[in-house]
Amino acid sequence: MIKIVVDAFGGDNSPTVNVCGAVQALKELTDLEIVLVGNQPVLEQLLATEKYDKARLSIVHAPDVISCNDKPTEAIKTKKDSSMSKSFELLRTDESARALVSLGSTGALLAGAVLRVGRIRGVKRPAFCPVLPTTAGGIVGICDSGANVDCDAVYLQQFAIMGSLYLELAYGVKKPKVALLNIGVEEEKGDALRKEVYPLLENTAAVNFVGNMESRNLLSGEFDLVVCDGFAGNVLLKSTEGACLQLMKLLKRSFMSSLRSKLGALLAKKKMYEVKDMMDYNNYGGAVLLGTTKTIVKGHGNSGEKAVYNCIKQAYNMEKNNLCQAIGEEISKLAAQQPQQ
Amino acid sequence: MIKIVVDAFGGDNSPTVNVCGAVQALKELTDLEIVLVGNQPVLEQLLATEKYDKARLSIVHAPDVISCNDKPTEAIKTKKDSSMSKSFELLRTDESARALVSLGSTGALLAGAVLRVGRIRGVKRPAFCPVLPTTAGGIVGICDSGANVDCDAVYLQQFAIMGSLYLELAYGVKKPKVALLNIGVEEEKGDALRKEVYPLLENTAAVNFVGNMESRNLLSGEFDLVVCDGFAGNVLLKSTEGACLQLMKLLKRSFMSSLRSKLGALLAKKKMYEVKDMMDYNNYGGAVLLGTTKTIVKGHGNSGEKAVYNCIKQAYNMEKNNLCQAIGEEISKLAAQQPQQ
Repeated sequence: MIKIVVDAFGGDNSPTVNVCGAVQALKELTDLEIVLVGNQPVLEQLLATEKYDKARLSIVHAPDVISCNDKPTEAIKTKKDSSMSKSFELLRTDESARALVSLGSTGALLAGAVLRVGRIRGVKRPAFCPVLPTTAGGIVGICDSGANVDCDAVYLQQFAIMGSLYLELAYGVKKPKVALLNIGVEEEKGDALRKEVYPLLENTAAVNFVGNMESRNLLSGEFDLVVCDGFAGNVLLKSTEGACLQLMKLLKRSFMSSLRSKLGALLAKKKMYEVKDMMDYNNYGGAVLLGTTKTIVKGHGNSGEKAVYNCIKQAYNMEKNNLCQAIGEEISKLAAQQPQQ
Repeated sequence: MIKIVVDAFGGDNSPTVNVCGAVQALKELTDLEIVLVGNQPVLEQLLATEKYDKARLSIVHAPDVISCNDKPTEAIKTKKDSSMSKSFELLRTDESARALVSLGSTGALLAGAVLRVGRIRGVKRPAFCPVLPTTAGGIVGICDSGANVDCDAVYLQQFAIMGSLYLELAYGVKKPKVALLNIGVEEEKGDALRKEVYPLLENTAAVNFVGNMESRNLLSGEFDLVVCDGFAGNVLLKSTEGACLQLMKLLKRSFMSSLRSKLGALLAKKKMYEVKDMMDYNNYGGAVLLGTTKTIVKGHGNSGEKAVYNCIKQAYNMEKNNLCQAIGEEISKLAAQQPQQ
């Protein structure tokens, strides 16, 4: 049995989507156990109309909520009765609780992960690794996408190792092709950090390093994992999402501006929705935090029920394949090879 | 008369598009003079079939070419007979030659700009400032988009000043709204550099600073100028362009996959081309290099004739409005306010 904690009061559409996503996951994954953390009477009322295996779902009462306006570290330390703090408390005290799924404040989740769960031995910094769909029909991971804004070369080396293991164990990608995000493909390109990281990745046995990548090729399908500092990764992720959304909006507006194109759009509607669906993050779960001793998955704040279900499935797959243990082993191998600092 | 030097042998489609773009500009701008630099017999042959005011066009012979595979600084120093080196030589020796338009190697252009043209007094680093169309129908500039990968806070402050003047003088944007590229909108967000730049921009009188911007809002039309280091700016620019291109490709492929959607696409074709046209960089000229004593405009390597024409017009507008002088005045005001380092 794999026990996953779900923060039921994080996200714009909570707790409804959190509860529905959890119920769906229980139906599909027969060795999954879920603990919903949040306001008990509200959760019980929502569950009253749902059909699920009651033996595999429990509730932990948490009447308070951490909002995106709260200061992350402070909120985790002082809002003891919040759904997120209680979730972390559960991870800390219950050995069998293996993972946490939350759509709440990214900062608070990161603070809780470091303060309450802790890093895997040898890991310098945990990092977020969301995956995006590529136009070739596959996926591409970005590590780090925002947990660490100031990075050194060894952090990026570890991101490459952790991200590779994640893609391999949670998505079955064999020998993931790892690229370094840079401003040109030539080896000598980039700032001081990139120039230091490049040879380091070339000499990391656990990483299938294929060289530099320019951001315009992110969705091309040529790469499985892009390694970067959290600042550049965040810019990369959000500008890609933003450009896709803005372009779709622009097309829609343009199609609606004449009768002829309106009719055309109607005929092509199904295909347009297929593309929209393909680019929809709800289908790809959330951004996994790599490097902590228990699995943590952060879903988009405005996730729907399907995204919550996918986040839970993602956490389940990671635990099923012992990702945290694999990361620990690979990072300690690395430490053994390197001189002590 | 405004004299502009055109590197006729830079870019994937040179020299044809360079020559045609120059001829078009001569037709439209009656006080423009152009010097085409490149292989003279080839240029003469191309010009033979064109109609233009011969008094306002001259050729400077340069048989060699700097390619994107050449090492930038080395190429500028050793390939004396290349079209780009000769162009810079002209800027250096001919007082009346005010600007250079090139589609060639970005690195070589930057090296030549610094080594042969030189910075405006007080400017720490010249910076690229391309503009993109927004979905609101306006434009947004990105400064720096790749000239400086390692930056300090004062560089970014100067990018904000130079970019603001550029948008105001070349595009007529009144009091451009300047945002700092960051990973969240709250003041305290970001890495060490961003935390230092934020209060600096708040206290810069010449800049209408409106706060942090997340990369997903680049095309929203809420901002006129985004200030960033060249690494993040390059990631922002190329991921936005890349995502738009990939999504259009995906839609096209999807529309062609059924008869019904094919018919739909046919009906909506005109509107689709309108959007494609709107997002086409050929309509927006090139990336201007701000901070050198003469105007330098870098066009996309795969620019067409229209883009070359727009680059020349851009350089013309900058010179017409004395942008370099305005930058010099504003930067020296800033230096007077700040303690000497």
